[in-house]
Amino acid sequence: MTGTTQDDYTDVYARRVRGMTTSEIRALFAVASRPEVVSLAGGAPYIAALPLDAVGEMLGRLGSEHGAVSLQYSIGQGNVDLRERICEVMALSGIHGASPDDVVVTVGGQQALDLLARLFLDPGDVVLAEGPSYVGALGVFQAAQAQVHHVPMDDDGMIPAALEEAIAAIARSGRRAKFLYTIPTFQNPAGVTLSEERREQVLDICERAGLLVVEDDPYGLLSFEGDAPLPLRARRREGVFYVSTFSKTFAPGLRVGWILAPHAVREKLVMMSEANVLCPSAFAQAAVTQYLTTMPWREQVKSYREIYRERRDALLSALHDLMPAGTTWTHPTGGLFVWATLPEGLDSKAMMPRAIAARVAYVPGTGFYADGTGTGNMRLNFSFSSPERLREGVRRLAGVMEQELAMRAVFGAAGQAHHRRRGNAAADAPGPDLA
Amino acid sequence: MTGTTQDDYTDVYARRVRGMTTSEIRALFAVASRPEVVSLAGGAPYIAALPLDAVGEMLGRLGSEHGAVSLQYSIGQGNVDLRERICEVMALSGIHGASPDDVVVTVGGQQALDLLARLFLDPGDVVLAEGPSYVGALGVFQAAQAQVHHVPMDDDGMIPAALEEAIAAIARSGRRAKFLYTIPTFQNPAGVTLSEERREQVLDICERAGLLVVEDDPYGLLSFEGDAPLPLRARRREGVFYVSTFSKTFAPGLRVGWILAPHAVREKLVMMSEANVLCPSAFAQAAVTQYLTTMPWREQVKSYREIYRERRDALLSALHDLMPAGTTWTHPTGGLFVWATLPEGLDSKAMMPRAIAARVAYVPGTGFYADGTGTGNMRLNFSFSSPERLREGVRRLAGVMEQELAMRAVFGAAGQAHHRRRGNAAADAPGPDLA
Repeated sequence: MTGTTQDDYTDVYARRVRGMTTSEIRALFAVASRPEVVSLAGGAPYIAALPLDAVGEMLGRLGSEHGAVSLQYSIGQGNVDLRERICEVMALSGIHGASPDDVVVTVGGQQALDLLARLFLDPGDVVLAEGPSYVGALGVFQAAQAQVHHVPMDDDGMIPAALEEAIAAIARSGRRAKFLYTIPTFQNPAGVTLSEERREQVLDICERAGLLVVEDDPYGLLSFEGDAPLPLRARRREGVFYVSTFSKTFAPGLRVGWILAPHAVREKLVMMSEANVLCPSAFAQAAVTQYLTTMPWREQVKSYREIYRERRDALLSALHDLMPAGTTWTHPTGGLFVWATLPEGLDSKAMMPRAIAARVAYVPGTGFYADGTGTGNMRLNFSFSSPERLREGVRRLAGVMEQELAMRAVFGAAGQAHHRRRGNAAADAPGPDLA
Repeated sequence: MTGTTQDDYTDVYARRVRGMTTSEIRALFAVASRPEVVSLAGGAPYIAALPLDAVGEMLGRLGSEHGAVSLQYSIGQGNVDLRERICEVMALSGIHGASPDDVVVTVGGQQALDLLARLFLDPGDVVLAEGPSYVGALGVFQAAQAQVHHVPMDDDGMIPAALEEAIAAIARSGRRAKFLYTIPTFQNPAGVTLSEERREQVLDICERAGLLVVEDDPYGLLSFEGDAPLPLRARRREGVFYVSTFSKTFAPGLRVGWILAPHAVREKLVMMSEANVLCPSAFAQAAVTQYLTTMPWREQVKSYREIYRERRDALLSALHDLMPAGTTWTHPTGGLFVWATLPEGLDSKAMMPRAIAARVAYVPGTGFYADGTGTGNMRLNFSFSSPERLREGVRRLAGVMEQELAMRAVFGAAGQAHHRRRGNAAADAPGPDLA
């Protein structure tokens, strides 16, 4: 403990720390946040579209008129006023009749996932998740020392037959799968949506297998073409844990999310959350409650839908016009992300330094898999940048890819054979600006 | 999963959940928050002493003028502006030369403790902690499936010889102690302070034993009689993790705390925090940064010292005037709490329902021990209530105790022999209003 080596604490760490190493691409993302870089990497909403004057006035009053409460401790489960408003938001998504008593307010959707992992996962347990899946969830499962078994998707979302196969394979290997983690609607990062028919099939499969479902639904309200399919939780009350957040529909800077959980489990989640953060921020809760009570939040969601649809269209047409032959991508009907598949032989992670040098950033596909696959993929965000910036970003990205392909044509595959080793997801986890 | 029993999820829970049960006194605390009850139970600061108009104005501007940043995602470690201000706050406590790069911003001090537990504790590991100790820390250690070994205190804080004995006993039992968790200054709940001389002794003992030190210092600035002794971290840079919070000096409702950690460990803490909450609230961070930059926060700390000194004096003189013979209590020179020891035979937990009926609340001592002891103790808070309310609360409490003693004199000890079983700390953990 008194030496001068880089890390004198190695022999004291818990076992869960052993797999954690700093990502080599983290440093790149720091550069990617410079204004001259077009970032297609983040998952940030377009906050400037909010009525900031009115929001500021509301926040000011929370301090001056209600500070003795809004700046004080709250309670572990979260305030009942907010939990009632949350039930109204869920009703807009098609989940009716939920009780505020079964809602637990969390520090964003991230803490919700972490609490569920702590509640259910012992080291060695298996979690099923779409492949690719949300990088932050993979980080949670890694911290819980769980193993992730990916279930492939196509344009209609997770493939039910593949889910059945995965469940059977896990059972054969003598391990225990505790839950399916799924983002059925406008999936992060794939941008696809689980079809109506498959929703019922997936629920039936999980019910038969005694597998819990953790449904993560941050984007469900951000639909561009009519309403999204009903959430899984709207179809089954038991065995489904519904997680969502105000990060995409209001403001990620307040860190307010929630879990809707079966009643018996809810009490345990509250105790878990108290041991983790004591209570969610009273001020952030009051801000969201006021926002939902006094401001036209449904209209704001509509406005986000329109802004993001325009941006998705801009991104898709730029990809269509500019991407080299052999590149394919998904066509999301909502949410924030497009998932691109590169021409054979290109490596999105190896290409990152050159992309940054060309002033464009994305998230390499490997971050979204627990098993090191995804080198041929990248996630592209369309919520944060203007249509013009999106097109410019794609132009820069296409230039880098053309150059890589040209190098490959000249020098062969050896020119980019590095960075192919299997890694773990958390090591590649981008910073939180990439939510 | 489709049955109708109370908890269909029992067979799916992680092992860490098994010890968790809802506390029977939680329901009482819900009643204790009613206005007619004088609560000596909480750990809430007196927020009404803040200049709420000015704070509200500042919060409003953060939304209206800086909303595009303050309502957006932040970064996992926390913003550098805030980390620089935090180093200034630590300098006021006597910790000079800390680098903002080694500070991790957390969701209150609670998340700081939880991150350190996740970093260092495997199931079965041992944590040393003062007996009694902070109930929220005991909850963290229980969730980490660690065992707590208490080290007794006297009026000068933790007893060094007892610490040495504890370390030896743990080594003899073949278990591994990872760190000492200590609140050396104005301890919660005991209200005592580790003396200058013992600070050096405790550090020497831990260094010799290769034991890390987690120093929790939420109250150090709230000194009533000159400055507090230098924190442990001001005496040793290596092996000491310093945790503090703005909950007692500014506002708990924002949930902003921090860890000052050795550099190599800091990176791992950031990754742990990202897997837990993605990032701390940008808005809360901006609020604290603005508060520390533009408002007279040092004067506000002085003002809190004066208010709390007056209230401590009021509580101590009420105890002196009104408590039945045989009651003893500590004489804190700072912080928020007095620790009382009841006359032989009285049980603070068993007495709670009668106290609530008499419209006074406190926290029974058992919540502050991991081993079920503390039935003869209670924690009394003096930061939240006015001097008049404090005296009225003690009057009511003394009445309940006199009545208990009278019953005991008539019926003998059998009248209150219940509730003596050993429990675990988390089961008794009061809600977060009791921080």
